[in-house]
Amino acid sequence: MSKKPLFQRIALIGFGLIGSSLARVVRRDGLAGHVCGCARTDKTLAKARELGLADSFTTDPAKAAEGADLVVLSTPHGVYRAIAEAIAPHLKPGAIVTDVGSVKRAAIRDVAPHLPAGVHFVPAHPIAGTEHSGPEAGFEQLFADRWCILTPPPGTDEGAIERVAELWRRAGMTIEMMDAGHHDAVMAITSHLPHLIAYTIVGTATDLEEHLKSEVIKFSAAGFRDFTRIAASDPVMWRDVFLNNREAVLEMLGRFSEDLTRLQRAIRWGEGDVLLDLFTRTRAIRRGVIDAKQA
Amino acid sequence: MSKKPLFQRIALIGFGLIGSSLARVVRRDGLAGHVCGCARTDKTLAKARELGLADSFTTDPAKAAEGADLVVLSTPHGVYRAIAEAIAPHLKPGAIVTDVGSVKRAAIRDVAPHLPAGVHFVPAHPIAGTEHSGPEAGFEQLFADRWCILTPPPGTDEGAIERVAELWRRAGMTIEMMDAGHHDAVMAITSHLPHLIAYTIVGTATDLEEHLKSEVIKFSAAGFRDFTRIAASDPVMWRDVFLNNREAVLEMLGRFSEDLTRLQRAIRWGEGDVLLDLFTRTRAIRRGVIDAKQA
Repeated sequence: MSKKPLFQRIALIGFGLIGSSLARVVRRDGLAGHVCGCARTDKTLAKARELGLADSFTTDPAKAAEGADLVVLSTPHGVYRAIAEAIAPHLKPGAIVTDVGSVKRAAIRDVAPHLPAGVHFVPAHPIAGTEHSGPEAGFEQLFADRWCILTPPPGTDEGAIERVAELWRRAGMTIEMMDAGHHDAVMAITSHLPHLIAYTIVGTATDLEEHLKSEVIKFSAAGFRDFTRIAASDPVMWRDVFLNNREAVLEMLGRFSEDLTRLQRAIRWGEGDVLLDLFTRTRAIRRGVIDAKQA
Repeated sequence: MSKKPLFQRIALIGFGLIGSSLARVVRRDGLAGHVCGCARTDKTLAKARELGLADSFTTDPAKAAEGADLVVLSTPHGVYRAIAEAIAPHLKPGAIVTDVGSVKRAAIRDVAPHLPAGVHFVPAHPIAGTEHSGPEAGFEQLFADRWCILTPPPGTDEGAIERVAELWRRAGMTIEMMDAGHHDAVMAITSHLPHLIAYTIVGTATDLEEHLKSEVIKFSAAGFRDFTRIAASDPVMWRDVFLNNREAVLEMLGRFSEDLTRLQRAIRWGEGDVLLDLFTRTRAIRRGVIDAKQA
């Protein structure tokens, strides 16, 4: 690789869809002098090795973080705190720790207090994904032309923020800076609630009487299919999202439930005007999505 | 056209997405000796004429039905009864009336009693669609490799059923016979509830505070986007679906709401095992959808 690496040594902790895709980008563009890959299980680590996703491998986050100038947490949120505690004594002064999780206030709560002074935590959320999981599911182009939101707390080292931003720019992303709480509220409605609803309706279908259930799959193209794709996303990751963005999800879910109850009542009492009014208004948002080139 | 037409004279009433797509198929394959197109407004009729979707045109369903051996209702459900009443005196003995609507018990309720003896009603539901509406939105391939469900009441003329089945086979569809009530229950969970939920969440987003709303569109690719597409479907058609499949939709909506409330409680009280269990089970349905080649 002729390009100058962005980092001397990167520790990639976690080889799911995001972690393994980032690893592919880092290798492709030579963004690191050395990549140490870390996974919890020997099985995942063996797969990452087979795919050539790093230069060295370990199941010990502390060893991975040793001497790294960048540590990337790409694990489910539930293990953030344990990893932060494990790596803290091994981080060198000036090291940057970042993550890729979908909940940012909790990331700051669970990681920042455990890091030593002189180590910089830059919370990040590359908004990209598919319904597939694991090291084989990753691909270089996952991040291309997508948003990456950074939510560094006030006072975070500007140089560290810029280096994390540059990493994601190299992956093809556009950087957006945001307050962590605002990020969590935006994601609650754009991502977390849609996933919760999709999981729910697919669950409702799973519990159907047998004579209906087989038909549901057969005729899923009528609308249900799109929900099954969303509801095939990684279970552990999503459990941790809901447990850690509780307040914002419950707030949006409350609003959604009120609105759904209103429609339920309109259907029961034959109030066609209530339905027509809503169904007409929702088209405007679709036009907004198309105009914003997000369709 | 060298092929022998299936029908001497077809009356196509309604030039929305389905009606105009069927018109294109009928013209392409020469399935009718003469096609008379009927739309409610002069504007739609002019557009249908411009697109060459029929041989003759009228805004009067009775005139369109005069002498037809097949009448296809492709209008919103809400006008079925009025059209049935209007065309009844003008239908010739042995004529077949069919429809393309998403609700079949109500179609039988609103059409059959008004037709004269000797005229055959064959309720049909070609399961195909996009989020676009109107005569310009139609295309020949809309029906290719999709299901068409026929729900003729017991005693319906077998020859009439077969002729309607053959029409949709020519459009590329696979025919499935089903009891109307069963059809409505299956569609309530596979199509109607998904649409209702999508409309609801997009409505919830529409009502957000301004500082959140613009972000929702910007970051819609995180999951919300798929719902905006579904919620851009034709408002009048969908109003009529919910008003006319009330019992089945309310039944499925009740189950969905119970399941959602259970998840809400699990999130509030941090019951990760409840979430993980559901999120794991829903993957099985996705595999079923993929195995059934409906993904």
